[in-house]
Amino acid sequence: MLKFHIENTCGDARAGQLHTPHAIVPTPAFMPVGTQATVKALTPDEVSATGARMLISNTYHLWLRPGPELVAQHGGIQEFSRWPHAIATDSGGYQAFSLAERCKLSEDGFAFQSHLDGSKRVLSPEESMRVQGLLGSDIAMQLDVCPPAGCPAEELRGAVERTTRWAKRCLDAKREGQAMFAIVQGGLDEAMRVQHARELAELAVDGLALGGFSVGEAPPAMHQALRAVVPRVDPARPRYLMGVGTPVDLVVGMGVGVDVFDCVLPTRNARNGQLFTWDGKLAIKNSRFASDLGPIDPECGCAACAGGYSRAYLRHLFQAHEILGHRLMSLHNVHFYQQLVATGRAAILEGRYPAWAELVLARLGRGRG
Amino acid sequence: MLKFHIENTCGDARAGQLHTPHAIVPTPAFMPVGTQATVKALTPDEVSATGARMLISNTYHLWLRPGPELVAQHGGIQEFSRWPHAIATDSGGYQAFSLAERCKLSEDGFAFQSHLDGSKRVLSPEESMRVQGLLGSDIAMQLDVCPPAGCPAEELRGAVERTTRWAKRCLDAKREGQAMFAIVQGGLDEAMRVQHARELAELAVDGLALGGFSVGEAPPAMHQALRAVVPRVDPARPRYLMGVGTPVDLVVGMGVGVDVFDCVLPTRNARNGQLFTWDGKLAIKNSRFASDLGPIDPECGCAACAGGYSRAYLRHLFQAHEILGHRLMSLHNVHFYQQLVATGRAAILEGRYPAWAELVLARLGRGRG
Repeated sequence: MLKFHIENTCGDARAGQLHTPHAIVPTPAFMPVGTQATVKALTPDEVSATGARMLISNTYHLWLRPGPELVAQHGGIQEFSRWPHAIATDSGGYQAFSLAERCKLSEDGFAFQSHLDGSKRVLSPEESMRVQGLLGSDIAMQLDVCPPAGCPAEELRGAVERTTRWAKRCLDAKREGQAMFAIVQGGLDEAMRVQHARELAELAVDGLALGGFSVGEAPPAMHQALRAVVPRVDPARPRYLMGVGTPVDLVVGMGVGVDVFDCVLPTRNARNGQLFTWDGKLAIKNSRFASDLGPIDPECGCAACAGGYSRAYLRHLFQAHEILGHRLMSLHNVHFYQQLVATGRAAILEGRYPAWAELVLARLGRGRG
Repeated sequence: MLKFHIENTCGDARAGQLHTPHAIVPTPAFMPVGTQATVKALTPDEVSATGARMLISNTYHLWLRPGPELVAQHGGIQEFSRWPHAIATDSGGYQAFSLAERCKLSEDGFAFQSHLDGSKRVLSPEESMRVQGLLGSDIAMQLDVCPPAGCPAEELRGAVERTTRWAKRCLDAKREGQAMFAIVQGGLDEAMRVQHARELAELAVDGLALGGFSVGEAPPAMHQALRAVVPRVDPARPRYLMGVGTPVDLVVGMGVGVDVFDCVLPTRNARNGQLFTWDGKLAIKNSRFASDLGPIDPECGCAACAGGYSRAYLRHLFQAHEILGHRLMSLHNVHFYQQLVATGRAAILEGRYPAWAELVLARLGRGRG
């Protein structure tokens, strides 16, 4: 159901291709987030034009509304949302814990009340796989337990062990033919992470994800853990770093051998007026852009920059709360993230990743915003 | 600066072409509203693809933010907003009266405090023309006095007379080479309207607008007044019915000889989940669309309908407050309005407007929503 082929390595970094039912995804890849079966503010055509070939959608949200049965009636999430390429779905556990009311975690799963209508629900490994099967994503994620940053070692170990048991239940319950990734936990305990990755690699899962990063720990601590752990995760399978991160996090992550990323930053920050460029971030509301006739980034080929929209016009749209402002800035940021992984991939293929990363990190550090 | 050429008439209805500096606008024409130099939720390319060739923007809003000097620095509102076709601007008087705080009307103009920052402003005929000159619109509107529906005859007459005096001041003050329309007032007093239209037609204005409709009166009363007044407005110049209206209003208006319309309905109602179709309105939140796999309107060729988005998906986007829902529904509604005037125009050119109008009114009356 999934084939992963590594084209070249450069130190720990790898460039490859992930063959899914709906797309061949060049890796390292960044998945824009389409929580509710839409990448916020953008059409599928616009997202596709940035080069993205895989999105991630959210099982929790789509389970509660509009319900996976409706999506299945359409023929699956691709047909429902008109995105023709690959889609991954996360398991919903994280959202059940963070969004729902009165969530109780047990060996069975997450028992909670919907944040939309208060209805009582149980998200078990089996239910998560049933829902993801109906959604019809190319890649399903196991239900896992994501402990908070800095939690006691005992709690961390409990989360890891339960996650392994749930990985097995998910494998038993998943829809035949649907790919599934297991999720490595362990916080910043590198030995526990490596051990967990080994246990999960013994299962017939199609990829290994790293969960529980970017949950409040300092970025250098996360980077250190990634350097220690990622190269020791089964190299034959795709490695997916969940919910990470900033452009710097992506450069570090690609360098240590991460193949797939996702993060809400490019779209969420666009809606807050924060733009990503090769020379760092730029806050469009800053008064110095009030009469700036230039584009967001003269180096950028996105529809917003190439379309001749000035920073002054974008600032006006942002100040006036106009949807077009969200659109153009989301387009730019998603395009930037795709360019970041695409040029990182080119550097890996050409065996010059460390030099590329050094240059990019120096530029990103300048910070315009 | 403006040429208006009538291609054919059919009873009182007329089909023509309005030649403006930035576009040849086929008439009857509907102008989507781009209050703050953007048609809400849409890009210029998307609006252009619906067939629209002229927008209307708002002097009051752009005067206060971002300021007309910034727009002039870009080279004008077309370059600022990246809309390559024609743009009209209204005078700002209506907004000064309805939006601003503590507005006082005198012979000089509107003295008020900005709704954005409380700053004291005076919008006089001269200031309105200065601002519209800097914005660089193809068609400027005179500053006028729009009396509320049902006001006493004395007040109505005062508004009409002041509007005529202001028309002359605007003509004196306007930027050389910029076209300007005068505005006929008079509420539902048909004789006063006709008299006012005659007075204004004696001035060197490029077109005659009908203001003060759709301000709270019943639609049949407005239709009656339009039937009595519009055919008696100078037939050699374009007639613009301001801020009107529903699809039914447009069919009636085209029939009596209106050449140009504008209204916020297609975009505003889209954001409220109301869709226009040939068979009437449709409220997407209605539960009967919850599992409806069909497009908004199987007859429609807009990007939302032709793009395969189901009513169920659009309802999901609407319920989830997703921007893509606003986008697709705005696209559809703007497309529908353009189709309405384009097919009305074709019927006028072919001399079959009454039959077309009868059919369309019967269908519109069915009301799906």
